[in-house]
This record gives sequence, C-alpha cells and structure tokens, in this order.
Amino acid sequence: MTPQPSLSLRSGGRAARRAARATALPDHLRPVRPGLTGGQYAPLSQPEVERIHHTALDALEQIGLADAPPSGVAMLTAAGCLLGEDGRLRFPRALVEDMLAKANRAVTLCSRDGAHDLDLSGTRVHYGTAGAAVHMVDVGTRDYRESTLQDLHDAARIADQLDNIHFLQRPMVARDIADNREMDLNTIYACCAGTTKHVGTSFTDPAYVADALEMLHLIAGGEDKWRARPFLGNSNCFVVPPMKFATEACLVMEECIRGGMPVLLLSAGMAGATAPSTIAGAIVQAVAECLAGLVYVNVMQPGHPAVFGTWPFGLDLRTGAMTGGSGEQALLTAGCAQMHRFYDLPGGAAAGIADSKLPDMQAGWEQMCSNVMAGLSGLNMVYEAAGMHASLLGFCHESLILGDDLIGQALRCVRGIEVSDDTLALEQMRQVCLGGSGHYLGTEQTLGRMQSDHVYPALGDRSSPKEWQERGRPDLIERATARKVEILAERASARFDPITDAAIRSRFAIHLPPG
Amino acid sequence: MTPQPSLSLRSGGRAARRAARATALPDHLRPVRPGLTGGQYAPLSQPEVERIHHTALDALEQIGLADAPPSGVAMLTAAGCLLGEDGRLRFPRALVEDMLAKANRAVTLCSRDGAHDLDLSGTRVHYGTAGAAVHMVDVGTRDYRESTLQDLHDAARIADQLDNIHFLQRPMVARDIADNREMDLNTIYACCAGTTKHVGTSFTDPAYVADALEMLHLIAGGEDKWRARPFLGNSNCFVVPPMKFATEACLVMEECIRGGMPVLLLSAGMAGATAPSTIAGAIVQAVAECLAGLVYVNVMQPGHPAVFGTWPFGLDLRTGAMTGGSGEQALLTAGCAQMHRFYDLPGGAAAGIADSKLPDMQAGWEQMCSNVMAGLSGLNMVYEAAGMHASLLGFCHESLILGDDLIGQALRCVRGIEVSDDTLALEQMRQVCLGGSGHYLGTEQTLGRMQSDHVYPALGDRSSPKEWQERGRPDLIERATARKVEILAERASARFDPITDAAIRSRFAIHLPPG
Repeated sequence: MTPQPSLSLRSGGRAARRAARATALPDHLRPVRPGLTGGQYAPLSQPEVERIHHTALDALEQIGLADAPPSGVAMLTAAGCLLGEDGRLRFPRALVEDMLAKANRAVTLCSRDGAHDLDLSGTRVHYGTAGAAVHMVDVGTRDYRESTLQDLHDAARIADQLDNIHFLQRPMVARDIADNREMDLNTIYACCAGTTKHVGTSFTDPAYVADALEMLHLIAGGEDKWRARPFLGNSNCFVVPPMKFATEACLVMEECIRGGMPVLLLSAGMAGATAPSTIAGAIVQAVAECLAGLVYVNVMQPGHPAVFGTWPFGLDLRTGAMTGGSGEQALLTAGCAQMHRFYDLPGGAAAGIADSKLPDMQAGWEQMCSNVMAGLSGLNMVYEAAGMHASLLGFCHESLILGDDLIGQALRCVRGIEVSDDTLALEQMRQVCLGGSGHYLGTEQTLGRMQSDHVYPALGDRSSPKEWQERGRPDLIERATARKVEILAERASARFDPITDAAIRSRFAIHLPPG
Repeated sequence: MTPQPSLSLRSGGRAARRAARATALPDHLRPVRPGLTGGQYAPLSQPEVERIHHTALDALEQIGLADAPPSGVAMLTAAGCLLGEDGRLRFPRALVEDMLAKANRAVTLCSRDGAHDLDLSGTRVHYGTAGAAVHMVDVGTRDYRESTLQDLHDAARIADQLDNIHFLQRPMVARDIADNREMDLNTIYACCAGTTKHVGTSFTDPAYVADALEMLHLIAGGEDKWRARPFLGNSNCFVVPPMKFATEACLVMEECIRGGMPVLLLSAGMAGATAPSTIAGAIVQAVAECLAGLVYVNVMQPGHPAVFGTWPFGLDLRTGAMTGGSGEQALLTAGCAQMHRFYDLPGGAAAGIADSKLPDMQAGWEQMCSNVMAGLSGLNMVYEAAGMHASLLGFCHESLILGDDLIGQALRCVRGIEVSDDTLALEQMRQVCLGGSGHYLGTEQTLGRMQSDHVYPALGDRSSPKEWQERGRPDLIERATARKVEILAERASARFDPITDAAIRSRFAIHLPPG
C-alpha cells in the first residue's frame, strides 16, 4: 500500500528543508495564501439569516443601547437616533439601513511593507493573533507566568516569519509595565518593531491616542504617509454587552477615527452571561451591537474603514467560566461570518481558542475546529487563531509556531476542490489503466502539481513509526521550541532604521533594549 | 469578564462527574446523539457534482474494471456489462443507472442490543473506528509494538463505553494469531464480546465466511435471528485501484451477500499513486469503482444493504508515503460525502486519521479537521474517526478515549444553530436589558438549556490556570490512561452469556481467555 517514491525531495533532509523555508515558493506554486475565498459552509439558511437581521433591527429599535458618551449622543441623535428617558439610544431601522449603505465595503488593512496587505472584500479569509492574555505558557516547565513586553515582541517576531499568520493583533498584555500610557505605547513599539504585517492594538484611555499617533507618524515617516497606509488598527471594545456602549472606548474610537486609524468594532458578549445562551440569540445581540457601532462610525465619518467584529464567546455553564474551544464556539463564529456575508461587510470574529492550558491534543482539536469552520464560512478576519490557551488567559510561542502548520491545513480546506478537465483526470486515468504503468506516481500531472496542490507541514510529523523511532521519537513541542530559538536568534527584519528608532526613543520611554 | 456561577455543578467534583457518567442523560437532554443531520457544508457546486458523476460514468463505460472473478464476469455480462478483449468489464451507463435505481436507500446497520442501530438515510452522521493498524501505541513508553487480539478486544470494550463512538469496525489486526482463519474468527469474537454496537470486519479468504456465519448464528441465537438483525458487516476492499476488481475479495463479498451480511464497498485509492493526485480525480475514480461495486451487489441481489465506501487517501508526494491528516484528506472525504448525497446512497469514508505517532497537538488538529468536515458534509459513516495514528499504522486506546471528546464537539457542530423565536431571544434580551438583572446567567432560558445545548468534555480541561496549577497540572494523556484502566476494570457488559460462550468456544479455537 505504500509505493516507493519516484519523485523524492527527501534526500536533502534537514538542510533541504531549511533551504526550502528560507526561499519561499514563488507565488504560483504556493498551495495556500492569505485571502483565499471561503463560504462553502453555511450554518444558517437564508431565511434564518434574515430572521437574525430583523431581530437585531428590532433590538436596536426597541431596546437600544445605554451609556453612549455625550459626544456620541449628540452625533447619533442628530442623525436620527432617539434618546429615551431611560438614557438609551434607540436606532430607527431606516437609519441603520442608511448607514449600512454608506459603510466601507472595500477595506484593505495595510501592512508596513506593502507585501502583506489584507483585502477584506467578499469572503476572503485571513488568520492572525489577537487577545489580551495575561500569562505566558512555558512548555518546558508547564508553568503559567505573567506576560512581558519582551514576550509580546518575540510573538511579533515569530508571527513575522510564519506564512499562515497574516496579521498580528496584540495577543497579550505587557504585565511588566505598570503605567497604562507607557504600556499602550510600548505595545505599539514591540509589535511594529517585530513585524511588518498589519498590527492591531487597544488603548486604555482616549488621552493616549494622540501619543500613539505621534509614534505611528514617526514610524511611517510622516502623518501623510501614515494616513495613506495606516498599518495599525484599533481593536475597540466599544460595547459592554448586553446593549451598552463602553463610554471610554467610544471616546477612544472617536480619536482613532480622527487620526485615520481603522477600527475593529469588537462586541465580545459571553453566551449565557452577557449575551443570550443560545447561539442564535448571541449572534443577534452581537449583530445588533455591531450595527450600532457601524452607525456610530459612519455618522461620524462616512466610509471610515471598520471591521464588523461580532465576537461572541462561549461559556461553560457548569462553572460560569469562559470557554472558547467548544463546538458551540465554532458555530457562534461561523454564524457571525455568515451575517457578515449577508451585509457584505468586512467582518471578524474569534476562532482558534484553546481551553487547554498546554499545546496538547485537546488544544489541537479545539484550535482546528473553530479555525477550519471560520475559514470555510468565509470569515475575513479570524482573530485569536494561534497561540491562545486557557480560554484566552495564556499565550504560548510554541503553540503560535505550531498554529502556522495547523492554519496551513485549514487554509487548504478553504481553497477547496478544483474541478476542471485536468483535475477530473479522465484522460490520465485512461492512460494509466489501459496499458500504462498502472499507477499515477510518475505522471506529468502528479509531478506538476506536487508543490501547488499540497500543503506540507513544517513541524507536523509524517514519518513512519520505524523512521520516527530511528530518529529518537522526536517530540512535537521540543521541535517547536527549537524553531522558536532559531527565529529569535535571527536579526529582526522588521526593526526600525536607526534614525527612526532613535527618534522614537528620544520622544517616548521605550522599555525594550535597542536591537 | 468571568461571572460567578449561580448554577454550579462543580461542588460535587469528581464524585459528581463519575455519577454523571454512570447515569447517562435522558435522551431529550442529550446535546448530541448518533445520526444528527449534516450537510451544511458543500465543497462542490451542483454542476461540479454532476461533472464528477458523468466523468465516473465515462470511466466505467470507456475504461472499465479488470480482474473480476469468473462468477462476477458471468453475472455482470448477463446483466449487460461488456467483457473486452483486454479482459476488462465495461459498464454501460444505462446499467449503472438501473442499478442505482435498485440500490437500497433505507439501510440500517444493526447493533446487537437494538439500542445502537445506525440509520444511514439522508445525511445522518455516525462516527466510529476502522482500519487495519498493525501497531499499538504505548503512550507511557512512546513505543510502537505489534497489536494483539487482547488490544482489539480492549478497544471494543472501550468503544462500547463511549457515547460518541457509534460503531466498531475492526481498527487493528491481531498480529499474535498466525493462522488467518483463526485470526478472522477471533477478530469477530473479540469485537462482539467487547461491544454490542455494530461491528465491521474483513475476511482474508472466501472460505472463512461460512465459519464466520456459523459463529454469528451462535451469537445471535440462530440463523433467522442473525438474518433479521445482522449486527456485523463485511468491510470489503473489492477493488485494487486503479480500476481493477480484487478477485478474492469479490468472492468474499458474494459469500457475505449470500449469508445476509451487509457489505461496505471499500475503494481505498491513494491520490497520487493508485488514484489521480488531484482531489477531483481521486473522487471520480473512487466513485467509478464504487459504482462498479454497487452494480455487482445489485445484479447479484437487488437491494442488498451496501455502504458506498469511497475512501480515497492522501499521499505525501515528497516521500510517496500515505498521509491522512492533511487538509487535502479532509476535502477528499467531504467531496465523497457530497457524491453520496447526490446519489442519495448510504455512504462512508475515512476521517480522523492522524499522521502523528502520538496523541499530541498535531494529532488533535489532524483528527478534528477531517472529522468535523466529514460531519458537516453529511457523511453517513465516518470511519477511522478515533484512535488512528501514524497514517493508519498505529492504534491508541488513550486516543480513542480522547476521540470521544473530540467527536462530541464535532457532533455539536453538525447539530448546528437552531433558529426560533425562543433561540433568537428578543424577549429575553428585552427583559434582561430593560430593568432586568443586566445578565443572562440566571434566566430561565439559560438554565433550561444548560444540558441540552452544550457538550461538556469528559477529559478536556476547561479549568483556569490557577485551578489547573492547584490540581497539579493534570496531564491529558495520563487522565486518558486512568479512564482506560477504569473502563477495563469493569465487567464487559457486552460479553456473551455463558451457554453461548461455551458453544462458541467448543466449536472454535478462541484465543481470548474466558471472561
């Protein structure tokens, strides 16, 4: 059953693999890439999608949202919202529909180098990190310790080297910086100095946004260059579910919009606590909240780039604790993606979360379940896709590296099945069966598609038990650690040029040592 | 973000969990069950499905299959097949279409106890084991050793206790029995004495089928009872891809059909070696081969229960070795499921295969990827779904146990999103937000759906890092081993009554010691 290879790449062994990694495949030979088109999976029927939409409109019209800041109340009531005696802003359907019409549907999230831009049109799928973990997972000692700025920078440097991690939203909090302003600014520095891919981050206080913009202008080489290609977005928890604006975060959002920064409208309800426990109900509420955010953005600045961030999370009702590794979570996220498709809006949600504390078998199945379903459902931005453990409390560098392999396979699924005369292969079958060799190993079609059709894992092991035993039963996690050490030993290619770096350091208290 | 539980089940701790396991949930409260309806995921468009169908018909008409046994040639040519001078049987489209019309679409695979019957209609999904692994994985020593009859029996006993393992096709070979006849017969004994769920197995030689039927009649309590509810099926590799009948296996199949045994028509091409390397091409060939098998069965006995077993496997073209953990494999299987749907035939394919040698993170992502996609695509019989490692060469009891958790989450995804006034939750949202508690933790709807909506893992860990550390950082695999020991210490509930057992043992050389 295991034919001998007539087309082996194996002879080169480790050296060949390293060389292969160093010289990425030319684009036409890459089996997967950012922005593949999903949507083959639809958990909801069209009438169900419409019911969710209409229920969300009902909720906005009848329940509305509390706690908008005075600036928001002024803008939104001027646009047609109604401020009730209960302090809640209610949204007439016509206003929501008008703003849906005005919303930006051609959003590209920029990278700093131009090579990793994210086109969020249609059902193009991108995977990346996100979150606010407070722990680092040490796989050697099985320890959870507080995460640091250096950990964050290292995560950025690792993500920069992984083909299937398409963006870096700040996945963890620099717990070693006590001052919130310094933390927010150093977070930007640590991320952008580590990767040229698109970065996402949050701000603790609206007052910090001006400083952040000043740093971003320095990095970009001027405000005009920043505004032309904003390579950093604001991940903004603009609501406190259920159905309340997060007053301070709304003010942050206003500052970011003025500064030309794309906004992720992030509604993070927990199904069973801050959102209905049912999947449909949690989606309704998330959609209602994000529609409120969309109105807010487009009333303030029509067409400002915004990501529709319905991020409902699961809850383990036995304990009341968050859980992100369940089938329910995968359905929450996939259902949201279908709503984004319905609105034809750039959208994002959370997937790839492991409840497991370590990168073990449980983590593998948890991360794949929601990641592959998110991709197949055509989610534009799959946040939290790699490295997240303990239901978002812990981040793990080794897991991030293994996540690149995992997401590679998920992306292969998103790419799907090509059907053409060539792939249907009737002529090839005829040649092989009728007087041919009787097998397909050496056919022109097999050889010609060897790279372009197949995603080969970097660390995932496919050797036979015999080979594996001869190689000393290599451990997956140990191999990931070795790869981490290798990446971090290299010079960070995303680092700022010395003049820019000096300018940033003279203006801000940067906690990372100069590189 | 982590609300305190107002509805805790935790106080009971381990004792409560054991009690909960011991007393299964009443059916209306079970969040998942065998036979949930999939099909929300469709990797192929309808025109693509039809192109695959027509290309398969072309292949049958133009290329045909070699190596049918004389009995098959006689039956098939009598029915309208054409025997060419090249010895190949070619199948006119009209004959294939006639036999498709006659095929049994209401197949139920019986369990011995009647409680675990598998209704293969529509897109009902069932997960179970399968394969012919020759190694057992010892997770303690990380060793691969030869698999034994006792290992097989233990796998059956474990599968019997796992809710989400719906059937037991023989997953490994009893390497400790040298005589093939004794191996085949002891395989039946070891499986059936371990579980009352539906069993699948193979026969090395057509001459062994009569003995097997005699044993099955003894187990059933008579031939009439066996024929009324055949609780064991023949997994039959009736083809040697590409496009050749497996002569001996066809003769086995004929014996099984005469004996009233359901047949799994298993075509196991390897994409890139014994099948085209393209996903579409491998599906075309598998469909063509299984259609040939379907004609064979229905010419011989119209309506005989048969499972359309398109099992194309992936190949790592770098080495020529089989691989089952890839995205390509998940697509092969999901595409096949869509073809089964098109024919409205009971169908099966392989998923859940890990290339990894151990139940580690790689195994988790590999097993989930194809398992959840198989379920979402509505595959009736998901074979190889749990326990399989090293690209089918190794079986692991701990992995089987963890597979129950993994498949539980996959089944939750198959169940999907319910949309109704109740689940859309507008009224609940109104009550909670407008003067209510502001959260959903204690609502009647949340409490009422706590069991029925949520799949809670048995071994998967959802504790916080703090709790986890306090509990001594429990290891997933060690917990699975403990569960294995627990199951195997219990009395096997599927064991035969003493009189039946004595009758079997007096007639056949049973290698397992009396229980």
